[in-house]
Order: sequence, then C-alpha cells, then structure tokens
Amino acid sequence: MTFAFRVETRDGRARTGSFATPHGDVTTPAFMPVGTRATVKGVGPDELRALGTQMLLANTYHLALRPGAELVRELGGLHRFMGWNGPILTDSGGYQIFSLQALTAIDEDGATIRSVVDGAKLRFTPESVMGLERALGADVIMALDHCPSDPSNRPEVEAATERTHRWLARCVADWRAHGGDSTGQALFGIVQGGAFDDLRARSVAAVTAHDLPGYAIGGVSVGEDRAAMRRAVEAAAPLLPAEKPRYLMGVGTPLDLYEAVRCGVDLFDCVTPTRHGRNHQAFTWEGRLNLRNAVHERDPRPLEEDCDCPACTRFSRAYLRHLCMAGEMLAAILLTQHNLRFFHRCMGAMRAAIERGSLLELESCIARAQARGPSAGPT
Amino acid sequence: MTFAFRVETRDGRARTGSFATPHGDVTTPAFMPVGTRATVKGVGPDELRALGTQMLLANTYHLALRPGAELVRELGGLHRFMGWNGPILTDSGGYQIFSLQALTAIDEDGATIRSVVDGAKLRFTPESVMGLERALGADVIMALDHCPSDPSNRPEVEAATERTHRWLARCVADWRAHGGDSTGQALFGIVQGGAFDDLRARSVAAVTAHDLPGYAIGGVSVGEDRAAMRRAVEAAAPLLPAEKPRYLMGVGTPLDLYEAVRCGVDLFDCVTPTRHGRNHQAFTWEGRLNLRNAVHERDPRPLEEDCDCPACTRFSRAYLRHLCMAGEMLAAILLTQHNLRFFHRCMGAMRAAIERGSLLELESCIARAQARGPSAGPT
Repeated sequence: MTFAFRVETRDGRARTGSFATPHGDVTTPAFMPVGTRATVKGVGPDELRALGTQMLLANTYHLALRPGAELVRELGGLHRFMGWNGPILTDSGGYQIFSLQALTAIDEDGATIRSVVDGAKLRFTPESVMGLERALGADVIMALDHCPSDPSNRPEVEAATERTHRWLARCVADWRAHGGDSTGQALFGIVQGGAFDDLRARSVAAVTAHDLPGYAIGGVSVGEDRAAMRRAVEAAAPLLPAEKPRYLMGVGTPLDLYEAVRCGVDLFDCVTPTRHGRNHQAFTWEGRLNLRNAVHERDPRPLEEDCDCPACTRFSRAYLRHLCMAGEMLAAILLTQHNLRFFHRCMGAMRAAIERGSLLELESCIARAQARGPSAGPT
Repeated sequence: MTFAFRVETRDGRARTGSFATPHGDVTTPAFMPVGTRATVKGVGPDELRALGTQMLLANTYHLALRPGAELVRELGGLHRFMGWNGPILTDSGGYQIFSLQALTAIDEDGATIRSVVDGAKLRFTPESVMGLERALGADVIMALDHCPSDPSNRPEVEAATERTHRWLARCVADWRAHGGDSTGQALFGIVQGGAFDDLRARSVAAVTAHDLPGYAIGGVSVGEDRAAMRRAVEAAAPLLPAEKPRYLMGVGTPLDLYEAVRCGVDLFDCVTPTRHGRNHQAFTWEGRLNLRNAVHERDPRPLEEDCDCPACTRFSRAYLRHLCMAGEMLAAILLTQHNLRFFHRCMGAMRAAIERGSLLELESCIARAQARGPSAGPT
C-alpha cells in the first residue's frame, strides 16, 4: 500500500503515527509549512529540511494561474520544480473560492473564479481540479469543496456541505478512473458542516462513506471565534476513522494545534509561522516577541537560548531588531526560519508528550508560547 | 605585522597576492560583497562563506544612522553583530557625502549630512569618522575623502583632492594616536584626482606620503563613461606602492574588474551582483540573463551547467523565472547568491590566469560574460 498510515502511540484521543508517502514518511502529528506558489516565502528546500520540515503544502489555485499546472508537469512535477523531494500536499482551490468570494461565482457544476494575476476567468470543477492536481503531482491531493462563507448560517452551511459531498463523489470517481492511489497520489476528502455539530457529524458520515487514504476537516479558521473553531474540530475529529490520517486545514496558532492534537488530528498547515515572521513576530516558549519593540534594541541574547535555528545560533535580538527596523530581507528570512523551527519543535514536544502519556501537562507550556510576550508590543 | 600583504605571482602589472588581517587572509585579487547595513541583502554569513566570499564591506554612514556605531560596539563590534568572522572593511561616508549631495554641506573641517532615516543632521569630520569606524571595529577602515561631484570640472576636482589630502593627514594622526594598526584596524588612504592624470598622480604622491597598510582609488564610477573610468584607474594604480594592497572603490562589472586587475588592483567592492540579482538579472559566462524574459518560461536548464551555487545546483531557469514573475523573495535570494558566486568565480579565473601568465587570454571570455545575453531582454 503506497499510503500506509500507522498509529503508534495514544494518549486519550491524541495519537502519534507514521504516514508513508511515495516521497517518504511523515511522523505525526506534523505541521506542514505553506508554499503557496511552489516556495515557502524566503526559505529554500535545504533550509526547510534542516528546520525539521517533513511535508509541504502548495496551492493549486495559485499555481494554476502562474506558472500553470501543465508547465509544472512539463518540468517534472512540483517536487522537481521546487527542488523539494519530500512529501507535498496540494489543496483544491476550495479555500480560494471562499476567500476570494468577490471574484467567484458558484454553481452546481463548479466555480468560476477570476485570476488575481490578470482577471481572466477560470473554471474549477471537481474533474478539472483533479486534473490540475494530477499535473502538479503532489503526494496528497485534496477534493474540491464548497466552504460556506458564514459558518453560522444554517441554510447556507447545509447547502454548501451537501454540495461538497456531491463534488467529492465526482472527485473520487475521477481519481479512481485515473488509477486511484496506485498513481502515487492519495485523495483526501474534506468534511464541512460549519458551526453545527449535527451537520459536522452528517458530513463525516458522507465523506467517510468513500474509502479514501485520509480525511480533512475544512471550513474552520474562516473568521469564527476560537471557541467555535474548537467546537467544530471536537465535533468532527473523533468521528473520523481512527486508522486514517486526519488533517485540519489552515490551523493555526500553537494552542490551536495543541487542542486539535488532543482531538486526534494528525496533520496541519497554516501561514501563521511564515506570515508572522515576515511581520517581525517571533514565537518563543516565553511568548511572542515583536522584534520592532525598543526593548530589544541592545539585547545581546538570541530569540531563544535552546533553539538550534539559523537565527538563534548566530544572531542577537539586537541584530534582528536592526534588520527589522532597516527593512532588510534577512529579517524576514531569519524570523521565518525561527518560527518554522518553533512550530516543528512544538509538534515534536506534542509527539514526545503523547508517547509519555502526558499531553495534558503540556498545555500550560503551549499556552505560554501562545501568549503575547511581555515585549511583543502592539501588532 | 598584523596586516601583511604579500605579492605572490605577476603577469604584466597584474598580480596575485595574500592580504593577512586579524580575521583571516584574503587571496587577491578579491571581490568584496556590499553589506551596507551589516547585511548583504538576503544572504546570511554561512551562505556568503559557501559562495566563496572572503571579505565584506559595510557602510559607516548607514550604520551610524541605524543602529548607531556605539550600539554595534556595545554588541561586540561588527563581526559579532552580523555573525561574520571573516575580514570586514568599512567605508568612511565620503561616498555618501557625494551621492547624497542634496543632503550635504561640506566645509574645511568636515561635512554636515542629513540622515536618510529621520532627517537629523550629522557631523562627519576626519576625527569623528575615525571614531565611528573604531566603534564598528572593521579590519580595514577608510579615511574620510571628498569625492568631487563632477570629475571633469578641474577647479572643483583640484579643491576636493587637496581637501582629501588634508583630511587624510587628520585621519592618519587620529588613527596613530589611537595605536595605528596595532589595534587591529588598518587605515587605507584614498586617491582622488577626477579625470585628470596629473591630479591623479599628484594625489597618489600625497596619499602615499603616509606609510599606510593600503591605498584606495576613489572618485571613479561616479557617472563618468567607461573610458574615463578606465583612464583614471590607469593613471593611478601603477603609481601606487607595489608592496601594498590596492583597492578600487565601488567598481564594477566583470570587465571593469578585469581591466583594473590588469592595472594591478587587488581589492574591489560593488553592489552590481547583489542589486542585479534583486532585479532579476543573472550573470553567466554566456552573458547576462533577464529571468523575466519569456524565453526562460519552460527552460529546464540551470542558469549555468557548471556553477555550484544554490540556484544552479537545484533549480531550473523556468522555476527561477516563475519566482521572479510571482515576486517571490526566493528569486532575489537565489539570483543574488548566483551573481556573488559568479563574481567570485571571475576573480578566481583571473587569479588562475595570472598564475599561468595568461591573463590577456581571459579578456574575450570576460567580455562575453559582460555582454547582455541573447535573452537578457530590456532592463
């Protein structure tokens, strides 16, 4: 079996595991950095590997616009194109259909969405998205879903969730017609259901009716508050089949990850560490730092004493602040690297805690990292 | 002697050599990447070393404004601050007095120059600049010079050159009063003289009347044409003492470097490789490429087959073009790395040719690299 998932240890509903892909194994729970346009902003593949990255995410919508999925296929697929020989996951464009609503028109067959590059109209259907993801060649490909714009509007959520199920059936049929996971690509279905426990449960049932290599929880982190997001994950995650990997899309902060891991989630992606890095924010176990804050001006200490990332092993907070204040590119590069390392260390700490059966004890530690540090300042 | 310079081989007036500094030896002729604000834009110190960088330049004016020379001193000096343990040279601010003329007022005692950061007035005198450079702690420090704004205006050039000599005497006195090169800092004097051979010769005589660890040629690459620049170097370089390193400030393209090496110049700095890299231009032995050009769209080849830089060992021209078109940070990072590697390889080729006694034969090769390549396109 190309995409074997094996649960290794459990602590409550949380589990550690190993997800085998054609480009290597992923030790779970794992965080996937976001490489929207076939690059994690400012960080090359060798550096990503050294930071502890196991698997990356790239965005089908953005790559379909530029440089085009066929061009990526012609150049050997996403792995060769971007120089990353580890596992890759591509999303389906469903999130962009949600986030670029002003540019989008949805009908039963699919969605028409304007290009953010040149305004051209693109047609996304379940079948066309499967074709784009085949051309890109990632290890894990996501089904096209309809993410409702307001997770608390029941009629809207219900319609979008039902449509997601119909689109999933078409994605599965197309994927199977092209060989299923024997082609080296695992299709994951996406659970919707908004803020409604019963719709989440109904969506899990519909999505897991298809025997797929993995399942994802979508439609979270779309503007709802943390409690609502947590509740949606709690409603869906425990119902997903225990023997398949569970992926929570687009989440989140360290505490969000921790809470989802406690619900049994295995895979995550989010722009939090990279975007915050470009915005002068550094995550540490003592809280988040805003490197533009004057308190760092003459501070000879690294961001974290025990961190082995390129920023911490070589540079002072004072130097990093100088780079931020001067608008130097190296500021974004180093803070992004530090934040990715921090997120990977968080996941490592969770895996170790699960193995020890002490995940609960990690909560206060993660909550402290989550908090804005004493010197974070306004953001 | 802390700053020993040894000429090793000669080919005509060109020479290879070794310049010993407190932070290691520099094999000459050598190119120094520009790290204006204590960072070579987008490239960290480990990467610089791997690209073949031996010595860096940083700008006293910019660092004096932000973060401030005293702050750098407090954090252990420039080497520790920026994480570069190789040799560093700081300029004196003389070039900024020239390039930021609209912000500057010059008198006999020094120059008053406004900050590009906050508009505050700063006073630069020979003594204050020596103080700033002491605080920064580079291995080589440059004397304050007055670079005339029009190198072909004889009265202006003559006055600026004479003032440069008077300022040099004050710099030398201040440097010696603080211990001279026994403190680990070598002072280099700067030859001016504009486009006039006799003024260049007179300036060489005045500057070399001080027994200093090295000498520089300034006031070139300030807007004059290539022939004028070449003539100024030919007028000054051969007159400088053979047993001391010769540094041509702010030059230039591969062909400029080659021609100056033939005149016996040993050290160079320029923003050409880094700035061109940020502007999508790659230097190759086949000419300069503009990576935004459509001809690269589907090209699976690296920038150069035989280049060992991070861009060429892992990525296609098609991928680099995609990064450029998408405005991704990794484009600037990779093209900057490639261009720096190319410049260091150029210098390596010149050193090898001098050792073989065949520097003349390298000219056509360097001239081809200099040319805009067939696909460079408009710039």
